[in-house]
Amino acid sequence: MQDEPEVVVLRLGHRPGRDERTTTHVGLTARALGADRLFLAGPGASRQDTIEDITDRFGGPFEVETTDSPTKVIRDWNGRVAHLTMYGLPVQDVEAEIREAHREKPLLVVVGAEKVPFEVYEHADWNVGVTNQPHSEIAGLAVFLDRLFEGRELDREWEDADSVVVPKETGKRVESVEE
Amino acid sequence: MQDEPEVVVLRLGHRPGRDERTTTHVGLTARALGADRLFLAGPGASRQDTIEDITDRFGGPFEVETTDSPTKVIRDWNGRVAHLTMYGLPVQDVEAEIREAHREKPLLVVVGAEKVPFEVYEHADWNVGVTNQPHSEIAGLAVFLDRLFEGRELDREWEDADSVVVPKETGKRVESVEE
Repeated sequence: MQDEPEVVVLRLGHRPGRDERTTTHVGLTARALGADRLFLAGPGASRQDTIEDITDRFGGPFEVETTDSPTKVIRDWNGRVAHLTMYGLPVQDVEAEIREAHREKPLLVVVGAEKVPFEVYEHADWNVGVTNQPHSEIAGLAVFLDRLFEGRELDREWEDADSVVVPKETGKRVESVEE
Repeated sequence: MQDEPEVVVLRLGHRPGRDERTTTHVGLTARALGADRLFLAGPGASRQDTIEDITDRFGGPFEVETTDSPTKVIRDWNGRVAHLTMYGLPVQDVEAEIREAHREKPLLVVVGAEKVPFEVYEHADWNVGVTNQPHSEIAGLAVFLDRLFEGRELDREWEDADSVVVPKETGKRVESVEE
C-alpha cells in the first residue's frame, strides 16, 4: 500500500482450463486486500486483462506483470519472500516477524496452484501455513494479507476509479466518479 | 466450532462448468476456517464428494448438505444471517455486532457466485462487505471467518483424521494417524 514497502504477489503454477477462475480470484484478492503488484507466471498470463479491467473501473494503483521465469523473480527479489503452503509454519506464529521485516523491506508473497517446486520452499524466508489443512490459496492469501496489514487494507483509498460502491445496509449502490 | 453456536455456510448460485473449482474452494475454506456445516445449493451439489473426501482424510467434524431451496434455508434459519457482498456494510464496522450475536445463536453465512436474488439481501440480518471492491467470495469468506472467530479457528482440533500435516520450516511432512 501507499507509503509502505511494496507487497507483491506471485501466482505460480496456473493450469490452463482448470485454474482460470482461481487465478483471477488470486489477482483480484491481491488488489482488493492491499498488495501493490501481481506477477502471473506462465499460462496464468491469460488472466492479466480481466484483472486490469477491474483496476481500470474501480481504481488503483495496482500493476499486473507476467513472467516466464517465476523462480528467477524469486531469486532476484530485493526483499523478503513468504511462500504460502499448508505444509508451512502456522501464520499465527510467524506473522509478527514477517510484519516487522516488511516495515523495512518489500515482501514477495508466493501463492501456488499445482505442485510447487522444492526450490521455492528453499528460497522462501518463510513457508507459511494458514492452517495446515487443504483449502484454498485464495483464502490463504486473503487471511495472510489481512493479518500482515492488521486490517489497514480495508481503509485503503483508491485512485482513478470510474466507479465507486457505496456501502448499503440492503441492496446495491454504485456511483460513477465524475472527473 | 465445538462448544459454540454453530456457523453454517450456504453457497448460492453455482454455475456448472464455470464454478467447479471456486465452489470447492468455498467448501474447503468453510471447513478449514471453523464453520461446522456447508449447504451447497442446486448444481453446486456436484462438489459434495470432493469436500467430504477431505474431511475423511484430514478430520472433522464438518458436514456437507445439499439443497434445492436455498431461499427456504435462509427463511427457515433459526438464528442470524450474514450475507457477504461487495455492496454491504464494511466488515470492520459490523463484525463486533455479529460476533456478539453469534455468542447466543447460530449464524448462517451466505456466499454467492452469480447474481444473488434481492430476497437474500432483504432476509439477511447483515449484508457485509469485505471491502467494497470486486474480488472473491472465497477471500471474503476467509477474512470474515478469521475475524468472526478472532483467530481461534487456527487452533481448532480435528477428530478422526487419517492424515496430519506437521508444520515445517522447509518442505513437507504428512503423518498417518494410527488408530
